[in-house]
Amino acid sequence: MPEFNADFRERLEELVRWRRDVRRFRREPLPDGLLDRILSVADLAPSVGNSQPWRVVLVETPERRQEIIRNFEVENLKAKGQYSGDQAQQYARLKLAGLRDAPIHLAVFCEDNPEQGHGLGRATMPETLAYSVVGMIQTLWLAARAEGVGLGWVSILRPEDVTATLDVRDSWRFIAYLCLGYPEEEHLDPELERHEWQQRTLTDERLFRR
Amino acid sequence: MPEFNADFRERLEELVRWRRDVRRFRREPLPDGLLDRILSVADLAPSVGNSQPWRVVLVETPERRQEIIRNFEVENLKAKGQYSGDQAQQYARLKLAGLRDAPIHLAVFCEDNPEQGHGLGRATMPETLAYSVVGMIQTLWLAARAEGVGLGWVSILRPEDVTATLDVRDSWRFIAYLCLGYPEEEHLDPELERHEWQQRTLTDERLFRR
Repeated sequence: MPEFNADFRERLEELVRWRRDVRRFRREPLPDGLLDRILSVADLAPSVGNSQPWRVVLVETPERRQEIIRNFEVENLKAKGQYSGDQAQQYARLKLAGLRDAPIHLAVFCEDNPEQGHGLGRATMPETLAYSVVGMIQTLWLAARAEGVGLGWVSILRPEDVTATLDVRDSWRFIAYLCLGYPEEEHLDPELERHEWQQRTLTDERLFRR
Repeated sequence: MPEFNADFRERLEELVRWRRDVRRFRREPLPDGLLDRILSVADLAPSVGNSQPWRVVLVETPERRQEIIRNFEVENLKAKGQYSGDQAQQYARLKLAGLRDAPIHLAVFCEDNPEQGHGLGRATMPETLAYSVVGMIQTLWLAARAEGVGLGWVSILRPEDVTATLDVRDSWRFIAYLCLGYPEEEHLDPELERHEWQQRTLTDERLFRR
């Protein structure tokens, strides 16, 4: 097994720190082959029973992208309606998606009934299939960042509508809509911290002993 | 923003390739401070609304560990009962958890109703809280591996029983039980491939266009 040294670990931590949810993209396309390279690294992610249940849809047609944008705008307006006063104004100032500028749109689904893996490891927790897909997405995020490519995860969407827009199999569960592209600006702190929506809190608050 | 070069990316891909689900551990404890360091990197993972909904329980008492092992053994026997003939024999030969030897046991939960984040980003998809926890786990997995530490994700457990054994809040949803420690042996291929349960398949089979 390869040894990873302190220098590599420092760079890895830096990568994890600089992995941001990007919502401001330059429109320039990615160089040929780069997306495939990033996806091939992500595809090495772990999965329950080695089932590899992720299904990645490259959304290319302008009509479909437009429907996704409309979906986001409707749901984002509803979400804003849940807040009042200062918080509603603050919400309105946040930029929560980069759907219009990002050159790459990926919709990620989970095959909820895969043959691959023969059901191993998921009898008591079928949700581990969806969790495997998320592990792939986090790997994709880091692999993209290592190439200077930003990723933004858009969750303010109605899953049923995304599924209808993209016309996918009934057994596919919608997990995430991802925008990828070169970031327009770079920040070490999350947008939600910078705009004082929510600071991160101390790690120790999340650790318990039993 | 820091630049990551080709050499780093190569090492990162190697890390992703060598990240295995480890089920054979040496019993020796981790050096002081190492677990905290790994957890502090994992804690930088993204989360919906910056909610950081992961709750990590270090399971230390022998009685509780014993109950978890019993939980696994009961559920694993049931799972084996779902297969027949050659497949049942093959299942029986697989080692699916390293609970007895791993020096560190972590139970990971999701706070399903966190104040932090003020609900942002999860109105249409509340499951993004659990997904945030999984992103943290995948980051933990890679950070551990970069330190030479193996991780095994045990999913063959009844969540209700884990929650009862560990006596945690009602609003916490059980996500994963993780074993950590130095691996007894190193492999580039997954246990499930080596024992011919399930090979990985071609990336292209999981890519679609719309």
